[in-house]
Amino acid sequence: MQTLLVDLGDRSYPIYIGEHLLEKDNLLLPFIRGLQVLIVSNTTVAPLYLRVVTEALAKAGKQIREHILPDGEQFKTFDQINAIFTTLLENRFNRDCTIIALGGGVVGDMTGFASACYQRGVDFIQIPTTLLSQVDSSVGGKTGVNHSLGKNMIGAFKQPRVVLADMTVLDTLSDREYSAGLAEVIKYGLIRDQEFIGWLESNMAALQGRQKSVMAEAVFRSCRHKAEVVVADEFESLDLRALLNLGHTFGHAIETAMGYGVWLHGEAVATGMLMAADLSCRLGWLSKPEVARIRDLLISAGLPVVPPAEISPGQFLELMSVDKKVQAGQLRLVLMMGMGHAVVSADYSPELLMETLAAGADLGRPS
Amino acid sequence: MQTLLVDLGDRSYPIYIGEHLLEKDNLLLPFIRGLQVLIVSNTTVAPLYLRVVTEALAKAGKQIREHILPDGEQFKTFDQINAIFTTLLENRFNRDCTIIALGGGVVGDMTGFASACYQRGVDFIQIPTTLLSQVDSSVGGKTGVNHSLGKNMIGAFKQPRVVLADMTVLDTLSDREYSAGLAEVIKYGLIRDQEFIGWLESNMAALQGRQKSVMAEAVFRSCRHKAEVVVADEFESLDLRALLNLGHTFGHAIETAMGYGVWLHGEAVATGMLMAADLSCRLGWLSKPEVARIRDLLISAGLPVVPPAEISPGQFLELMSVDKKVQAGQLRLVLMMGMGHAVVSADYSPELLMETLAAGADLGRPS
Repeated sequence: MQTLLVDLGDRSYPIYIGEHLLEKDNLLLPFIRGLQVLIVSNTTVAPLYLRVVTEALAKAGKQIREHILPDGEQFKTFDQINAIFTTLLENRFNRDCTIIALGGGVVGDMTGFASACYQRGVDFIQIPTTLLSQVDSSVGGKTGVNHSLGKNMIGAFKQPRVVLADMTVLDTLSDREYSAGLAEVIKYGLIRDQEFIGWLESNMAALQGRQKSVMAEAVFRSCRHKAEVVVADEFESLDLRALLNLGHTFGHAIETAMGYGVWLHGEAVATGMLMAADLSCRLGWLSKPEVARIRDLLISAGLPVVPPAEISPGQFLELMSVDKKVQAGQLRLVLMMGMGHAVVSADYSPELLMETLAAGADLGRPS
Repeated sequence: MQTLLVDLGDRSYPIYIGEHLLEKDNLLLPFIRGLQVLIVSNTTVAPLYLRVVTEALAKAGKQIREHILPDGEQFKTFDQINAIFTTLLENRFNRDCTIIALGGGVVGDMTGFASACYQRGVDFIQIPTTLLSQVDSSVGGKTGVNHSLGKNMIGAFKQPRVVLADMTVLDTLSDREYSAGLAEVIKYGLIRDQEFIGWLESNMAALQGRQKSVMAEAVFRSCRHKAEVVVADEFESLDLRALLNLGHTFGHAIETAMGYGVWLHGEAVATGMLMAADLSCRLGWLSKPEVARIRDLLISAGLPVVPPAEISPGQFLELMSVDKKVQAGQLRLVLMMGMGHAVVSADYSPELLMETLAAGADLGRPS
């Protein structure tokens, strides 16, 4: 087992990365202050892993309650959060309770937001059960829900007390979900670690074969990257943290246009990253062979690289303009200036952006 | 005009206290970073004061939008918060926007919570238009909404960038609302300032006559008390901040039992404070003459001191047990050990608590 400390002063916490961590109740217990524990999971994950987590904690005398969410991004709504509050209040949960998220990014985001708001904040623990949530949402404290007019528009910064990233639980992940997680792993290479891009190219076969030691290494390196960025810019007040959104402005537009849950987040981000690379190339910041290398890596990870044909460039632009990176009316994008080096910039020509938005299937073709 | 600085490090902010502050656009402008400003008010306050605030800011080139809430504690729900988010998103409000609360405690709590959650946090300014919100919710950053199972159970800590406490706007306050505000003013005396109790006794006639200089002095002293407590215990992690809840555990039970909005918050707190004093007296911590002095002061401020007869002691206890001060299953109460000295304690006999809950109309009678 490896331990990564996310160093945020009095909000610091460890991420434990390894195999068979769920059974180890002694990993969680030091981080649970009171007796009351609510485990929030969903209808897919609960049948697989809820019992083992519950038993480990019940043995230690904790009073466990469960709240099972429906599975899917389309349920990432405030109504579902309110149902968590109802469970907490019906069971008389106090301010010294702990809420554990057992599931993927949606469960983590919603449970974190519920923890941030219940009685203005109670303790929160994350057990991410997807690759994407292990490498992305388990670090950084971003929590929230969707609004009908925009994804992740409502939320809070809420750091967990501890995170368990257990490779064993990834065995039950579908290939599609697993690939979606690899999109965020690849992202860390693209934005800040050229060497990691090469490592991923060399190890993609082992990752696709789900070799646990290689997976753990990929998760550790990803979390370390994210932790470094988050420590430097916890509340996204600098542009540093915004770099983590490479591909996300394009990707969110795809997710919103298609309806939440139709494209997986990682799939939309993968396509969005290639669109960002394509625009960077049109701006002369990235070479065509570099764009091709990014496309090939994404495809080798089983990811889509072409946006849905039904989204017109105009609709793309409309949806992108509600992005949180808009400042004083101007849409800023995360773009690439060479491999392993992302920048936040409003310094692009709108015409070139329109070319990228109109490129469609060309994005998937060898140039 | 007096200025009180609430010293919370990088979340510090000034409270301006005086007359005719609303017209002074130059007071707010230094605290508004971007162009987009949403003013949230309600159907009662907006017709009175929205235009003067809007005009002052529009003159400075700000892009103003308005969101008008229905008036009343019964509308302090997440559905209403969601309507604010819809206004923000429909108008493409970005992360550098500012949201101004123009209204009483309900408007302030809801607007603050919306500001805390919109895009995980945007700037927030408070213009409290009731005495209660000027002396209570304008300091401390507590924001939130009610849940059908409990008051203020959902929320966030969110500090404003600046607060305008304008005595002039209190002219339009009903006597009942004004008295409710005096309850919280009296509270500061009871919990931490014996001299202030005497000052209030001497100046109650002037306060009831709404003499602005005396009102400003009461607001300044109240805000300074609250600021001192909040600075020492911003997130209520010590018991210090909990002292501000003198009368609130009893009071919340009254508000919940009667239905939100039937009793004003300050009215419920006034009765709750006398109940806390009564229990403190039964414990031998406060003398009968001291309890009588508190009762007389509350009555002179036009406040009720007898809980509704329809709430049985059992129902009181049931409603009080969801209080946020419950720790490890034990209900802790704010009680008094002498005039001007409150304590948080679980060290009371349940039998004496039942006596207080059963005292009813006796609370209002000279002993």
